[in-house]
Amino acid sequence: MTNNRGKVYLVGAGPGDIEYLTVKAYRLLAQAGVLVYDALVSEQMLELVPDDCLKVYVGKRGGLPSTAQEEINHLLIKYCQQGKLVIRLKSGDPFIFGRCISEIKALSAAGCNFEAVPGISSAIAAPMLAGIPLTDAVMSRCFAVFSAHQPSDLDWEALSRLDTLVILMGGQHLSEIIHQLMKYGKNKFTTMTPIAIIRKAGTAQQQVWTGTLSTIVEQVKTVRLSPAVIVIGEVVRYAGFSENM
Amino acid sequence: MTNNRGKVYLVGAGPGDIEYLTVKAYRLLAQAGVLVYDALVSEQMLELVPDDCLKVYVGKRGGLPSTAQEEINHLLIKYCQQGKLVIRLKSGDPFIFGRCISEIKALSAAGCNFEAVPGISSAIAAPMLAGIPLTDAVMSRCFAVFSAHQPSDLDWEALSRLDTLVILMGGQHLSEIIHQLMKYGKNKFTTMTPIAIIRKAGTAQQQVWTGTLSTIVEQVKTVRLSPAVIVIGEVVRYAGFSENM
Repeated sequence: MTNNRGKVYLVGAGPGDIEYLTVKAYRLLAQAGVLVYDALVSEQMLELVPDDCLKVYVGKRGGLPSTAQEEINHLLIKYCQQGKLVIRLKSGDPFIFGRCISEIKALSAAGCNFEAVPGISSAIAAPMLAGIPLTDAVMSRCFAVFSAHQPSDLDWEALSRLDTLVILMGGQHLSEIIHQLMKYGKNKFTTMTPIAIIRKAGTAQQQVWTGTLSTIVEQVKTVRLSPAVIVIGEVVRYAGFSENM
Repeated sequence: MTNNRGKVYLVGAGPGDIEYLTVKAYRLLAQAGVLVYDALVSEQMLELVPDDCLKVYVGKRGGLPSTAQEEINHLLIKYCQQGKLVIRLKSGDPFIFGRCISEIKALSAAGCNFEAVPGISSAIAAPMLAGIPLTDAVMSRCFAVFSAHQPSDLDWEALSRLDTLVILMGGQHLSEIIHQLMKYGKNKFTTMTPIAIIRKAGTAQQQVWTGTLSTIVEQVKTVRLSPAVIVIGEVVRYAGFSENM
């Protein structure tokens, strides 16, 4: 049984700037009755909702943990059942490291109307905004995207055989990532393989470092790499062409 | 030396519908002096440019080949040097199977101003619009994106060890793809692994088939699978939750 009054939109906010929202996300925000949002969603976006929209922050605050997932699910259902147009805004794309399956299951079980609206994941936007294509007819027939917050969970031997790697949440494990890839130096990656680190992509504070697997740790040793996207592979050489960009 | 008069924007059009354009792409189209576009860009988008915008089609026409890449590069430079705001509109994202490096090199060499504007790649949008998240805390820590128009170019053993595969241009090689993955059946994928095929994602004609690696070939044997995105992995099981979407 579907409750036809309210509706929840799980919306990707893209990498940061309003310019990279989709037209659909922009339009929905202008109609929102309730906005439920995380950390990493920019202040600018909070200005896009109507004056009487209820804004509910569920991200981390100072050293405190974020709102529990069950509580978020409960909020979404409650406002939906009150007949509201609810926007659940997540940075990037809701289906790439967006952890929205729990929300979808809960909404589905409660008979709430919902719809997911794609956004530009920082995994895709960050390399591009640094001038790095993820595919190339010669250099990159394949790219893989993964989170390295727990490096031991990954099959590094398989990853070391792909052309291009895009790594999220890897800033704190940069040395470990390089160590793992070097173990399989007979595959794609060597100490000379280019690497780029893009910090705060798509915002006014965007910074990019490029080097090789042998130089990068030293280059960024004084930098707090969060949030950052790491790109490894020959396509990083194209970053130089972006000087005009 | 940079020519400051004109500027070329390499713009991603997203999966099809205007709603999935970025705000930036939408705004730029409304200001375009020249629009250079491919096949797969929807008719609707051609309506977004000013009445006096010059529209130059460079995609395939009937059985005829597309305009040669050198000719496209030459057009972009010519209009830029005439001081125009030129939009080079490509379906999806320009840096994912967008083949825009040749254009960027040519523009850079000619001293033309240019900028790339990300779009939502169909590799990302198609799974989502079918209700399939590409990452999941348990089922998918890693996904790989690749084109399978030449299956023999790929390292199937490495690919068979990843959690989730997103395959573009694989419709004509579906049997071969499954055959290759089954060779390494000791890894992630078995005959029971779920697969989804999403055709014309993000358009009114979107169609989705879901099955397993043992059933899908029979399910789609009468269908012309182009353009289509193939998703393989346990996350495909989530497609069922999208009934409300």
